[in-house]
Amino acid sequence: MRARDLVADFPTVRVDTPVLEAARLLAGQDLPGLVVVDHRGRPVTVLPGTQVLRLGVPAYCQEDPALARVVDEAHADVFLRELADRTVAECLPERPRELPVVDSDATVLEIAALMARTRSPLVAVVDQAGALSGVVTLDALLDRMLAT
Amino acid sequence: MRARDLVADFPTVRVDTPVLEAARLLAGQDLPGLVVVDHRGRPVTVLPGTQVLRLGVPAYCQEDPALARVVDEAHADVFLRELADRTVAECLPERPRELPVVDSDATVLEIAALMARTRSPLVAVVDQAGALSGVVTLDALLDRMLAT
Repeated sequence: MRARDLVADFPTVRVDTPVLEAARLLAGQDLPGLVVVDHRGRPVTVLPGTQVLRLGVPAYCQEDPALARVVDEAHADVFLRELADRTVAECLPERPRELPVVDSDATVLEIAALMARTRSPLVAVVDQAGALSGVVTLDALLDRMLAT
Repeated sequence: MRARDLVADFPTVRVDTPVLEAARLLAGQDLPGLVVVDHRGRPVTVLPGTQVLRLGVPAYCQEDPALARVVDEAHADVFLRELADRTVAECLPERPRELPVVDSDATVLEIAALMARTRSPLVAVVDQAGALSGVVTLDALLDRMLAT
């Protein structure tokens, strides 16, 4: 059982996709996360759902629970409207992290370890040219691991 | 809009629940994660799906992709069988992390910031006695934030 046996099609966004559109895709299809691809279809990054959410949370609220509590609902709405003009690229973290990306030979255990380590419920599978073949989701992997 | 307006019922597991049973609950109901409660119904920890998966990945494979690759399928199967005898308590990380737990007064922005910071697609909501009232999932939160 390798990545190629588990891979499935998955919607993608581009770095120039508006953040709100990306969030709507995630919420509308109940996806576990999003794959961001460049113009040649290669994964630039994989964003777990929580990190798509992070794109929409003001930096000053992310690390300080007290601040997040005092921002009232009206302000939160204003922030969401301001977000409408921003793209995914403008919201990505500057520090690149280990990406949950594997080739088609990756084993079930390798994918599981990568998901656990990167805390990503989806892993992008790329071909030899680095283009996206599809993804393996946590649900698909667990279903497979538990099927025996 | 506060946590009390977003909270929904959610299945729980206990620290003495077998890991395999916890994994089957997660996969069978396509849950974003699990809430582990003590015998009084108070959340001990909240495990995102990727961290439930971590319970089932040998420690020596988690940090070393090369090792995960060379473990063949037969060995992976043996490991899953060994896991059958272990409980959630035996697999929890020793180092406690910030828990995604809020009271019913938490704001949408506070919950969003907590999900982003803890990388957890679900947040447990507790009452004044610390007992679990239910959870807010990432999907429920995003649906609400994008509804306007």
